[in-house]
Amino acid sequence: MRIARFSIDGNVGFGIIEGDPADEGGQLVELIKGHPFGDFERSGHKVPLAEVRLLAPVLPSKVVAVARNYTEHARELGNTVPEAPVVFFKPSTTVVGTGDPVPYPTFSQNVHHEAELAVVIGRMCSRVPRERVADVILGYTCANDVTARDTQQTEGQWARAKGFDASCPLGPWVETDIDLDAAGDLAVMCTVNGEQRQLGRTSDMVHSIADLVVHISEAMTLLPGDVILTGTPAGVGPLTVGDEVAVTVERIGTLTNKVVKRD
Amino acid sequence: MRIARFSIDGNVGFGIIEGDPADEGGQLVELIKGHPFGDFERSGHKVPLAEVRLLAPVLPSKVVAVARNYTEHARELGNTVPEAPVVFFKPSTTVVGTGDPVPYPTFSQNVHHEAELAVVIGRMCSRVPRERVADVILGYTCANDVTARDTQQTEGQWARAKGFDASCPLGPWVETDIDLDAAGDLAVMCTVNGEQRQLGRTSDMVHSIADLVVHISEAMTLLPGDVILTGTPAGVGPLTVGDEVAVTVERIGTLTNKVVKRD
Repeated sequence: MRIARFSIDGNVGFGIIEGDPADEGGQLVELIKGHPFGDFERSGHKVPLAEVRLLAPVLPSKVVAVARNYTEHARELGNTVPEAPVVFFKPSTTVVGTGDPVPYPTFSQNVHHEAELAVVIGRMCSRVPRERVADVILGYTCANDVTARDTQQTEGQWARAKGFDASCPLGPWVETDIDLDAAGDLAVMCTVNGEQRQLGRTSDMVHSIADLVVHISEAMTLLPGDVILTGTPAGVGPLTVGDEVAVTVERIGTLTNKVVKRD
Repeated sequence: MRIARFSIDGNVGFGIIEGDPADEGGQLVELIKGHPFGDFERSGHKVPLAEVRLLAPVLPSKVVAVARNYTEHARELGNTVPEAPVVFFKPSTTVVGTGDPVPYPTFSQNVHHEAELAVVIGRMCSRVPRERVADVILGYTCANDVTARDTQQTEGQWARAKGFDASCPLGPWVETDIDLDAAGDLAVMCTVNGEQRQLGRTSDMVHSIADLVVHISEAMTLLPGDVILTGTPAGVGPLTVGDEVAVTVERIGTLTNKVVKRD
């Protein structure tokens, strides 16, 4: 099931995507009653996907992200692969959806794309045992951990480098039909203006999704809608104003954003 | 004016603290209609302060904190004083109020207190010019940036070390009658079981409150209720289960928490 958050005619709701882009008339969104973290009913009310504006599929209270989780990516930036996951936060003000602009931050001259698989937490949890990890995950979406690389290199903690406004595009929707094993072997790709920049597989992660949920939830409670970014494969590189950056994760979809001048 | 958030009989509201602890009958809380970030009315309904349970005075979407902002404290941990502020996040799941327990995290054997002055943001703002900083501040409260020192030293980013549950006690209320100049010269103290551990003055900050608001808001939008922690003076040290840790900031009040075993 693909769960989207969207606006139409000034209203915001969650809905389920139906059909295939190739269908005559295109895909539809069926509005749900309630929210996807609990029991919900299908409303029966369907609108063409093309008529809604997709929003970030969840509103996380926090995005917990992991650095250097693909060996080749760690090496390309001259870093060693750490024994424990390198965990950092992106606050809620970083989150935007597919199609939303990413304003180039005023304090950086070297902003990079980082395509990632994102885990969407479905229920409040802490100190999750390994065998319960699958139970706390609602599904998966695509993420771009947009990073001011120059700021990251000069400021020891990454709050500004990875926490600036709109630096966490998420979307286009949450795919709930991928199980934990399958999520551990998906292609993750990034294109800039249609040209491939990153291509990796989640099977190359140093720390698995289960490892990350155990490690992070040992310290902090995760809330429904919270998101874990699982790290980026090799091939990160600069974005410039005007670029269209697209993150595709196999079996999920494509998250597309345009880099714009900050006004 | 002192604005508190509290619960009584299962209801949660904001109120204004009236009177002095020495008054006959003690202090009162007058419930307000609306919330303190916009226009509000006094309700006329007053209850004794002793009868309410104080909560964290705001529910921040994010806490933005600053490390090594007092020279003597940076030195006591063997760090140099950085040219730019060292900025990190504490997520909303770290925030508790005065009187709330702080469970000792399971992954650390060396948890420290860090007494700090906290700035409470009053209105949505970004790229705040220096001359407008005072306009975006609602007031000030006390904070304890509780830190797993061992984890901080082994994990390059501090998400777990400073982001674990209940690691950001805030309170007891927001004091709005301190202006920006006065906030830059307040005593900040920490006691553990009544014994003084930290004592400093905000006038010893390396980066002023105005510097921090300008620097942080250059990168990210601040929302009403967001909190900036301004760093801790020298004297940090370990807490153990059973300790009562109290942070006092001059003209504001005292934030008290007990360290408990995590169950």
